[in-house]
Amino acid sequence: MPHSTRRAALRATLQDQELDALLVTNLLNVRYLTGFTGSNAALLVHADSDDTAVFCTDGRYLTQAAAQVPDLERVIDRPCDVALVKRAVKAGVGRVGFESRHVTVDGLDALADAADGAELVRAADLVERLRLVKDDAEVEALRMACAAADRALAGLIEHGGLRPGRSEKEVARELESRMLDHGAAGPSFESIVATGANSAVPHHRPTDVLVRDGDFVKLDFGALVDGYHSDMTRTLVVGKAADWQRELYQLVAASQAAGRAALAVGTPYADVDAAARGVIEEAGYGDEFVHGLGHGVGLQIHEAPALSKAGDGTLLPGMAVTVEPGVYLAGKGGVRIEDTLVVREGAPELLTLTTKELVVI
Amino acid sequence: MPHSTRRAALRATLQDQELDALLVTNLLNVRYLTGFTGSNAALLVHADSDDTAVFCTDGRYLTQAAAQVPDLERVIDRPCDVALVKRAVKAGVGRVGFESRHVTVDGLDALADAADGAELVRAADLVERLRLVKDDAEVEALRMACAAADRALAGLIEHGGLRPGRSEKEVARELESRMLDHGAAGPSFESIVATGANSAVPHHRPTDVLVRDGDFVKLDFGALVDGYHSDMTRTLVVGKAADWQRELYQLVAASQAAGRAALAVGTPYADVDAAARGVIEEAGYGDEFVHGLGHGVGLQIHEAPALSKAGDGTLLPGMAVTVEPGVYLAGKGGVRIEDTLVVREGAPELLTLTTKELVVI
Repeated sequence: MPHSTRRAALRATLQDQELDALLVTNLLNVRYLTGFTGSNAALLVHADSDDTAVFCTDGRYLTQAAAQVPDLERVIDRPCDVALVKRAVKAGVGRVGFESRHVTVDGLDALADAADGAELVRAADLVERLRLVKDDAEVEALRMACAAADRALAGLIEHGGLRPGRSEKEVARELESRMLDHGAAGPSFESIVATGANSAVPHHRPTDVLVRDGDFVKLDFGALVDGYHSDMTRTLVVGKAADWQRELYQLVAASQAAGRAALAVGTPYADVDAAARGVIEEAGYGDEFVHGLGHGVGLQIHEAPALSKAGDGTLLPGMAVTVEPGVYLAGKGGVRIEDTLVVREGAPELLTLTTKELVVI
Repeated sequence: MPHSTRRAALRATLQDQELDALLVTNLLNVRYLTGFTGSNAALLVHADSDDTAVFCTDGRYLTQAAAQVPDLERVIDRPCDVALVKRAVKAGVGRVGFESRHVTVDGLDALADAADGAELVRAADLVERLRLVKDDAEVEALRMACAAADRALAGLIEHGGLRPGRSEKEVARELESRMLDHGAAGPSFESIVATGANSAVPHHRPTDVLVRDGDFVKLDFGALVDGYHSDMTRTLVVGKAADWQRELYQLVAASQAAGRAALAVGTPYADVDAAARGVIEEAGYGDEFVHGLGHGVGLQIHEAPALSKAGDGTLLPGMAVTVEPGVYLAGKGGVRIEDTLVVREGAPELLTLTTKELVVI
């Protein structure tokens, strides 16, 4: 059971922090530690044993909780956070951590009313730090999510989905529909389809603008599988590629390859960004690469680590990240190339398998 | 401009609460007060004048903010909440309210560091209380959202979308696709399509189970238009309706009509629930109506007021609510019938216009 293994790792953290227990109220963290996918839940983890962990949800999820969280004591109550603090007090717990990056000011008041002798201690990012490094089950979900996106794009291209005259919105809908066909529960974020000059807008939303011969078409999209998000960008040319398009594409591809090559265990996050950024700066386009190189992906589409100038930390084996340099020439067009990869001893593991050679269709 | 009118109403509230300003950090509240639809923003509203209001977002939204919030001073900074508290301090503000139901414990720390002499005052639900009553622009968006759902269902039925042999998942995808065709930005929540015995599960998620002759098919779905959510449930019969199905349907329809009839200005929320619940209890099915009667809808799919036993308050003109009684016979089938309506002086305004007679297809 990956969930009990994850809770064991959390217990070790609690012992380090001299906490007797942690109240987990962030729903993604609860999911990570239990497998529960409903919309309301909390979890109390004690530092000393998994046997005393208590899961809480409300009556709507009685059956679902029994199926998804068979290995823990379950209580049905509202609100769950207060119910679990009362349970901690009853168990004689002294120091109870709470997730201070998620609990609101009014929420803490309600917890304090229930704490009755127990000390509520700020505990930020304890579960998030565990989530930085993906275990095998997580990588498998990411792999399936990336495969759904790869297959959707292959089907789109094969069936003429990018021919001139189609609108950005139509392309986005077809991509998303094809991801569902390949097992996605949905898109992992609002798909970006940007054609012609729109490709120079980093986070363009699909419009009624039509694909035309000679356009760059930038597709940034992903699939959601078992709660895990894939993220991939490919930029294609429709019709015939002009020289400036080939040059711009090759520059971004070289930058992206340099970023991937820098994805080694122990490398500072900022150095990965610098490796890719240096290629673009050297070509004189540093000001046109307006965002960080990449980010972690998992239960959230954007999570730690940040592969950017400001990123603080070094790569660990099992981190899942994107590498996505871009150069955007306003009014003309832009290129971004993005993969999702897992950091490994040796070379990183590539999860998005669509070619990065320039595709002209 | 509805947004400046809404800010004027908020300023009156601030004066009542003896606050010099309010820091608005909940993104839906920022949208409500400014029209901004991006993913990161905050707003500082002063009690005395609209001219000194300051809107903040980050560099990604420079162009979008200029287009959507032309009438306010805009600053580009990160993090916005801290930047705006510093602005309030610079303006010499004494008491600054913050949204204590949304600001986290760690977030308040950061604000306190920046407050430097200004007093940070808890202020819960000030904007949410304004949002309880919808203005004309909001009702218009809800009306369009409800119309998209009505038209999607009509198209689904007309084109044989509910014939035996189709899976719940296929039906859900077609419904959602048709809502996009009719102007929705997306579904307003994960559509519920529940056939046969699954119709007895109140919040069933679509599966590969196939529609069969004689099934109840329960469809609970909605469209998202301009940020506003519609919500409608219809339960149909495929093939030929059995007597027990007709009886169950008529019971729920009578309950739903009683609930709608009770939607009068000044009526306590709990009394609306009781009016519909009484019909079902009298027929001996009180224990099979396992949820509240309805909820507010607007920028959130579930918002205040709660039309339930525990609901605390009375109906005001302009509130937008659902009325959705259900009876669920485990292992057999269930019926729910749900409309979205606006409370008015006199009869409520019905926004979901699909028939509530039993449709047999």
